[in-house]
Amino acid sequence: MSTITVPSSVPHVTEDVEQLRKAFTGWGTNEKLIIDILAHRNAAQRKVIRETYAGTYGEDLLQSLQKELSNDFERAVLLWTMDPAERDAFLINEATKRFTSSNQVILEIASTRSSHDLLLAKQAYHARFKKSIEEDVAHHTNGDFRKLLVPLVSTYRYEGPEVNMTLAKSEAKILHHNISEKTYNHDDVIRILMTRSKAQLNATLNHYNNEFGNAINKDLKADPKDDFLSAVRNTIKCLTSPEKYFEKMLRMAINKTGTDEWALTRVVTTRAEVDMKSIKDEYYKRNSVPLDKAIAKDTGGDYETMLLALIGHGDA
Amino acid sequence: MSTITVPSSVPHVTEDVEQLRKAFTGWGTNEKLIIDILAHRNAAQRKVIRETYAGTYGEDLLQSLQKELSNDFERAVLLWTMDPAERDAFLINEATKRFTSSNQVILEIASTRSSHDLLLAKQAYHARFKKSIEEDVAHHTNGDFRKLLVPLVSTYRYEGPEVNMTLAKSEAKILHHNISEKTYNHDDVIRILMTRSKAQLNATLNHYNNEFGNAINKDLKADPKDDFLSAVRNTIKCLTSPEKYFEKMLRMAINKTGTDEWALTRVVTTRAEVDMKSIKDEYYKRNSVPLDKAIAKDTGGDYETMLLALIGHGDA
Repeated sequence: MSTITVPSSVPHVTEDVEQLRKAFTGWGTNEKLIIDILAHRNAAQRKVIRETYAGTYGEDLLQSLQKELSNDFERAVLLWTMDPAERDAFLINEATKRFTSSNQVILEIASTRSSHDLLLAKQAYHARFKKSIEEDVAHHTNGDFRKLLVPLVSTYRYEGPEVNMTLAKSEAKILHHNISEKTYNHDDVIRILMTRSKAQLNATLNHYNNEFGNAINKDLKADPKDDFLSAVRNTIKCLTSPEKYFEKMLRMAINKTGTDEWALTRVVTTRAEVDMKSIKDEYYKRNSVPLDKAIAKDTGGDYETMLLALIGHGDA
Repeated sequence: MSTITVPSSVPHVTEDVEQLRKAFTGWGTNEKLIIDILAHRNAAQRKVIRETYAGTYGEDLLQSLQKELSNDFERAVLLWTMDPAERDAFLINEATKRFTSSNQVILEIASTRSSHDLLLAKQAYHARFKKSIEEDVAHHTNGDFRKLLVPLVSTYRYEGPEVNMTLAKSEAKILHHNISEKTYNHDDVIRILMTRSKAQLNATLNHYNNEFGNAINKDLKADPKDDFLSAVRNTIKCLTSPEKYFEKMLRMAINKTGTDEWALTRVVTTRAEVDMKSIKDEYYKRNSVPLDKAIAKDTGGDYETMLLALIGHGDA
């Protein structure tokens, strides 16, 4: 569930656009006005605002924002203003140009989006970068990470609720066998995780837990320093309990000495309209501190105001 | 270009449906009438016919046809009547249940369809089989074939005309290096063939030819009995010259002792509305016999009449 609040009577789009333009001109930038408008409009409304702005002033709203804003606040507003599919495409492209640690971002987007949303991101990627997510991710990675990430961004997973219990049992056994043998990168492990529907995978992992006594992610902790193992664990978490995965991302971003704004901004802007409500519940359960308090303590200024507006300040 | 002929004034759909029903009832089946209607309606028209038929008689037209027809003629009419995306889904599903020789069908469909058409086939597969093409293909294959076929059915390729010449040169070198070393199944070979756009791949392979003196498929003929090498060659042919690939399929199906009706029917029904015109031109160039003559010589009865109607008899 979404955590943003949209006023019960939203001003006409031309008024929003004029107010935004006003916020950019004159003495300094009116950051508060920008937040008041953009943080309180849903994706469809922001899309119309951006189109009307471009039609009226002959400039992409993202460019105007980029000129006026800076640092973490700029990144938060820009990511938020983008269309969700365009934002995913942008984040993946950015990740393919950075260090391998950014594989995490690719993994997260590919495995937490629905098949349809991932398809929209692929189409946005074609339109904007004139190439495919698949080729850039394949080019950016190698070895086991390529073996994991390329199918992950490629597969168009089935999303129905049907579960084949015979298959779940046989594949739980295959997973357990390979984990016991420490052949974590075995073709069959990759195949099962990368192609089965989330419902089917869930049945397989439940059976794994019942039959072999441990949750699979516990068995995959054999070597906590192994980056590939950690990627496999994260993939499983993203596929089966995305809100727990995102809670952990937020917790790690906030608890880190110096706060990881890059991750914090990404999680807040990409989840606010999707499942931030559940993520906040998870966060409170795990940390005994409401997420808004934790963010307020670690951030400041317009950046703080923007994030709190997106996660729904005060109603944690 | 399509080779079917649609009458300039098509009867109203209710009339088509009544005529079809008439063809099924009474003394024997009126095969000629079935061909006269179905082989001369395009995909959109057949779709409406099928919907109207189901609405009127409470039975799927495919089921009625299945009851009335038999053998090669039955298969040709059924495949033709299906919606193209449903047909691709059906053929892939059928292939995943047969011997590994049917890998050819999966390879052919995945690499000759546009990204959008392959996506439609994936959606049709979800709807009909309650699972994904990716999981069934991955489950059906192993080793090098899995390494080739799973990304092939998964990738959502970019389809724009843009070509990066620097990339083409560096990737031609990577391909040549691996072919010289006989590491045909190298990750990078698979990555390049499976993820690059068709335009980019074409530039890479042209550069390969110019720089290293041979077309890549010639260099890939090192061992003509190696099934994997043959699959790689077919993939390249499908991606870069589909009409040449289909010409060869037809030639082999027709020249085989006993005719391979399974392949013949598939190629004719899947390409009639797409590029059969170019395939016929290729066929005549390569065999000095028009395709319709060759088919007429090798087939007979209603099956022959149906195929000839689809490839446009007499205008080769």
